Amino acid sequence: MSILVVGSLAFDDIETPFGNSPDTLGGSSTYIALSTSYFSDDVRLVGVVGSDFGDEHFQLLKTKGIDTNGIQVIDNGKTFRWAGRYHYDMNTRDTLDTQLNVFADFDPHIPQQYRDARFICLGNIDPELQLKVLDQIENPELVILDTMNFWIEGKPEELKETLKRVDIFILNDSEARLLSGDPNLVKSARLIRAMGPKILIIKKGEHGALLFTDNGIFAAPAFPLESIYDPTGAGDTFAGGFLGHLARAEEINDSELRKAVLYGSAMASFCVEKFGTEKLANLDLLEIEDRYQSFLDLSRIEA
Amino acid sequence: MSILVVGSLAFDDIETPFGNSPDTLGGSSTYIALSTSYFSDDVRLVGVVGSDFGDEHFQLLKTKGIDTNGIQVIDNGKTFRWAGRYHYDMNTRDTLDTQLNVFADFDPHIPQQYRDARFICLGNIDPELQLKVLDQIENPELVILDTMNFWIEGKPEELKETLKRVDIFILNDSEARLLSGDPNLVKSARLIRAMGPKILIIKKGEHGALLFTDNGIFAAPAFPLESIYDPTGAGDTFAGGFLGHLARAEEINDSELRKAVLYGSAMASFCVEKFGTEKLANLDLLEIEDRYQSFLDLSRIEA
Repeated sequence: MSILVVGSLAFDDIETPFGNSPDTLGGSSTYIALSTSYFSDDVRLVGVVGSDFGDEHFQLLKTKGIDTNGIQVIDNGKTFRWAGRYHYDMNTRDTLDTQLNVFADFDPHIPQQYRDARFICLGNIDPELQLKVLDQIENPELVILDTMNFWIEGKPEELKETLKRVDIFILNDSEARLLSGDPNLVKSARLIRAMGPKILIIKKGEHGALLFTDNGIFAAPAFPLESIYDPTGAGDTFAGGFLGHLARAEEINDSELRKAVLYGSAMASFCVEKFGTEKLANLDLLEIEDRYQSFLDLSRIEA
Repeated sequence: MSILVVGSLAFDDIETPFGNSPDTLGGSSTYIALSTSYFSDDVRLVGVVGSDFGDEHFQLLKTKGIDTNGIQVIDNGKTFRWAGRYHYDMNTRDTLDTQLNVFADFDPHIPQQYRDARFICLGNIDPELQLKVLDQIENPELVILDTMNFWIEGKPEELKETLKRVDIFILNDSEARLLSGDPNLVKSARLIRAMGPKILIIKKGEHGALLFTDNGIFAAPAFPLESIYDPTGAGDTFAGGFLGHLARAEEINDSELRKAVLYGSAMASFCVEKFGTEKLANLDLLEIEDRYQSFLDLSRIEA
């Protein structure tokens, strides 16, 4: 199944109580593409980088079978950079610095050979750019969108316009409350689903995720990890695993959506175990299946 | 199965964004006993009240089959009172007033006919009193203990002494972090289980609960409710439902413990739907079974 991923590629400077990781490969589309690459052999990536984006990063993506021809490289430009610091409890972080660099003028161009992709995953970028991407796509089967509080506060109308064309919307609990204006997540979900996306996933970090469909609610646990080294990219990694499982499923129904949420959760649980994309770049299918089984065990009730 | 419940009986003045509920029957043992009464016909209650504790409250408890002979009534005394205010998101509350009244001199005396109880549930009271209760009991099968941050901070050594004699310990996530000194719940659980209780439940409010045993971890979701009117007593109600299911189970193993966590969660989800014990006092077994099934559906994955 062909998957088009559009989002940011970045270098992150990450500080945590367990150590620092400067110049770390990051960005929403990087995490999504790496995560989904374990489930699909046709992942097409669109983003923008500067000439400082080394060949080793392209090689990493290519090793995972990701098509990088859609990544624009801006000569003499610098790649988007983000610097952040996590606190002791890992639930809060401060952004220390953001340098948009080449990302400031990003105008996503979808190469001709990418336009027949069946699944479209729009990582967290300006909703106007997300809309521009959708305008270039031929009749996709499924559109998945991620966003963040920055766009909910800054471009709510543009975001709502984009949401009308989205099938599956992924956001976190505080973003859901912000977008809906309601502190109750069940009410929030109803209000947000009325904006367009029939399928909604509300991520709750260390507390798991909720899936809302026409048929009800699914509550996925988070994996109770002993050590979380770096939460950066966990949300994008979730989206990649979720999308990846759906792409290989025979049909998209509640049963497969629930499994997809657990696969997304499994991938995210790997992501946080090392800095940046390090763990995500070095997984195998057996490990992923084992972790998925652990998620099943976590909420299993015998009849 | 005989169950002894020891804890507070109180009148609460509750303020929420949805309204106020003054002079509301409350207290840890009230919630525990009412909740567990749907599962067992031999619930024995020990606590203390003043002469202001009206006959209608005794009648309510008796209607549910609860033995109230162990409730000490202090002539001319006043029942324990608590006043609190919940905020808009219902996750935080301020204690406005606490009047210990007759509870200040509570010295739990377990009536002779109560002492052969098989299950002992020690609600949130001074750990020294909890220990005093255990000293009066003949060889119980199972001791369940609840506590709160007030005792963790104020009487940590006494609490740890008591914990050595406890089989199942129930506390919430912030209390677990406080008692263990570790922000990670998995590590917290290991540290706390080493203090005595082989079975540990960490409640996470609207995010469900985690059960830790020798055989692994179970993650129970919380029921995603549209409206939460009053969280008062939800934790005690959880303990009551949990205990109740165990009391009727043929044996205590991981499978029954997991189901018990869901029954506890189901009871707690009812509790918060109305003020105080109002909902808890008016349930039937069919409703409880329906809610339990809803909890199963919430995390069900088809093979």
